[in-house]
Amino acid sequence: MVKISKRSEELPQSPIRKLYPYAEAAKAKGVEVLHLNIGQPDVLTPKNALQAVKDYDVDIVKYGASSGKIQLRKAIANHYIKHVAKINYEDVFVTTGASEAIQFVLFTAMDAGDEIIIPQPFYANYIGYAQMADIAIVPINSDIDRAFKLPEINQFEELITDKTKAILLCNPNNPTGQLYTESDLQALAMLSKKNDIYLIVDEVYRPFVYTDKFYSALSLNDMDDHVVVIDSISKVFSACGARVGCVVTRNRKLLDSIEKYGQLRLSPPDFGQELAITCYNIYDEYIGAAKLQYEARRDLAYSRLSNIEGVKTYLPPAAFYNMIELPVEDAEHFCKWLLSSFRHQGRTLMLAPANGFYRDQLLGKSQVRLAFVLNVEKLNLAFDILEAGLIAYRGRIA
Amino acid sequence: MVKISKRSEELPQSPIRKLYPYAEAAKAKGVEVLHLNIGQPDVLTPKNALQAVKDYDVDIVKYGASSGKIQLRKAIANHYIKHVAKINYEDVFVTTGASEAIQFVLFTAMDAGDEIIIPQPFYANYIGYAQMADIAIVPINSDIDRAFKLPEINQFEELITDKTKAILLCNPNNPTGQLYTESDLQALAMLSKKNDIYLIVDEVYRPFVYTDKFYSALSLNDMDDHVVVIDSISKVFSACGARVGCVVTRNRKLLDSIEKYGQLRLSPPDFGQELAITCYNIYDEYIGAAKLQYEARRDLAYSRLSNIEGVKTYLPPAAFYNMIELPVEDAEHFCKWLLSSFRHQGRTLMLAPANGFYRDQLLGKSQVRLAFVLNVEKLNLAFDILEAGLIAYRGRIA
Repeated sequence: MVKISKRSEELPQSPIRKLYPYAEAAKAKGVEVLHLNIGQPDVLTPKNALQAVKDYDVDIVKYGASSGKIQLRKAIANHYIKHVAKINYEDVFVTTGASEAIQFVLFTAMDAGDEIIIPQPFYANYIGYAQMADIAIVPINSDIDRAFKLPEINQFEELITDKTKAILLCNPNNPTGQLYTESDLQALAMLSKKNDIYLIVDEVYRPFVYTDKFYSALSLNDMDDHVVVIDSISKVFSACGARVGCVVTRNRKLLDSIEKYGQLRLSPPDFGQELAITCYNIYDEYIGAAKLQYEARRDLAYSRLSNIEGVKTYLPPAAFYNMIELPVEDAEHFCKWLLSSFRHQGRTLMLAPANGFYRDQLLGKSQVRLAFVLNVEKLNLAFDILEAGLIAYRGRIA
Repeated sequence: MVKISKRSEELPQSPIRKLYPYAEAAKAKGVEVLHLNIGQPDVLTPKNALQAVKDYDVDIVKYGASSGKIQLRKAIANHYIKHVAKINYEDVFVTTGASEAIQFVLFTAMDAGDEIIIPQPFYANYIGYAQMADIAIVPINSDIDRAFKLPEINQFEELITDKTKAILLCNPNNPTGQLYTESDLQALAMLSKKNDIYLIVDEVYRPFVYTDKFYSALSLNDMDDHVVVIDSISKVFSACGARVGCVVTRNRKLLDSIEKYGQLRLSPPDFGQELAITCYNIYDEYIGAAKLQYEARRDLAYSRLSNIEGVKTYLPPAAFYNMIELPVEDAEHFCKWLLSSFRHQGRTLMLAPANGFYRDQLLGKSQVRLAFVLNVEKLNLAFDILEAGLIAYRGRIA
């Protein structure tokens, strides 16, 4: 028998997607499954941007520049100058989603065997990309009792070795909905500078901040070589399927290296880039309503979750996630049980078990991640199911 | 100073793209540059497929299935059943271009430190993807004096060690335009089976065969677990910018592993997949004219090249490339010189130096790759420039 690679056997399944077979089985039996498991927004993609794809006239769908269309890089740069920080369009390297941006940055900023410090829980796909790049994730615990705020800086400092090449943050945070503040970023910048390591910040949820104020790593002074930002149109513009993201950094040497990986895959998707150009150009008229929708859901979620017995939660200041603790021993078992055995008025609920968002999986054993990607009415139904499910589950395992 | 990774410094630049700065400089001075360096077809993308993207109506550009849209997988399977070999739609995993397909296959079929045998010259980007997967390419020389036909099977056999996990072919071949025959494939299949290694065949130029007959690796008997085919719409349908390719294999365990890497990057581009569905559905009405255009160019190229003094060539039976030997010591120097110093009636020519298509770069030192991606009239002009350039260059370096 020809063999499958060991590394692919060791690669974990996505915690967001691994329970799909259970959801499919439920749907096959006529059960309505409400999805809070995946960050697939139900907010509409900008109409003008969809129209731009329809209006895009070409005879040949050609390879483009590896770094993306100049028009898109300029649209992104203009957006950054207005809303984020002063950059040049040449600081923008367009990628096939933030996923590819992460991969390119790990391969160019770090060598095999190097270490990267990431607060856990973290975006689960970092594990896979670190494994592909043969990089060790050194997790630093953030705690639900502190609403997953940034751990103390001295705890980061203690983890730095001569193999540490970067600190990676997701800000606003997926999966916690937490926001790292200006002073958090300043402190991490000092630490990164002192140890000459990269500060990589995944800012794909940037506009969705409801409490406090967002501070981009690109606003940090005197960190041009050290700061690398990951971005994407997926969440901001509800355009996950377009597969358009970018790396933004003022470190030109790093960009030169990224260009080589970019040439390997030739160019980012043509139609998605056309969509993205219009997205960035109409940001101002679009983003307010999208943000209001997510804020209303967050408020509803907090109010509902605070009233479910035994659930530990906090008010997430940003993004559209909440990592909560359930009064169950094994949240993955509970999630499977919801899909396979529990029905509430003909419906059930799909959640993402949190263990996959931790390198040390036991830490997340009783937690689940919720994504607020349903409208207020559906979201209320989802919490009805969760509330009833927790009661029934307790009865069942007692 | 924060450092760039060693691996990214070691990653070679694309031989197809690395001379662009010289081409840009020439264009900036008003010189027309004819491009034979890159496989960007000038044949038109199917009109109906472009229209399908315009007609595609969605409110939200959502993530899709990691393995691609079912409708596309079925369109590909139907196409294969009719034109290639009997497969099931579940044997098709849709990727973001053939590039991603190569990456996924290398990561799932092989571990770090494993070896892959590839006839050289080969598609240059295999080097980068092998480096990313930490796989050693073991090249086997194919020779211009044999028109780059497949080396003898016993030569492959001699290279197999306990680290060898795969043989990789590109058939029809980029960069040589050569075609491996049914008996070549049969012999390699026996060898792969005997040693229990994968036979990976990149068939992205499949329909463009002018002499002899194409034989897909998927037609091999009793090789379901060992054969993996890489495919793409880029060349067949002149849709390089759509970024849609696929892995086709009957090895379900391998597909399960590919699914995990696919989930990491979430899904292939949405709009490109819509384009691709129509491409496969209208293949029969489209492909004939496209093929005739490439065949006419190949014939013209062969007739012109055969009459340029000192040029060594052969009639490429397939694809739209030709790897030729020039009467110069250093083809890369000649290519740069064409762009920076040589003008013929206000024009010059961009070629891809062949050294980057070899692991052992010296073997390609006098060779260049030509891509027949200009119409017959422009192609004639390109050969006028090459002919005059070779005479002028000889005068210059003598």
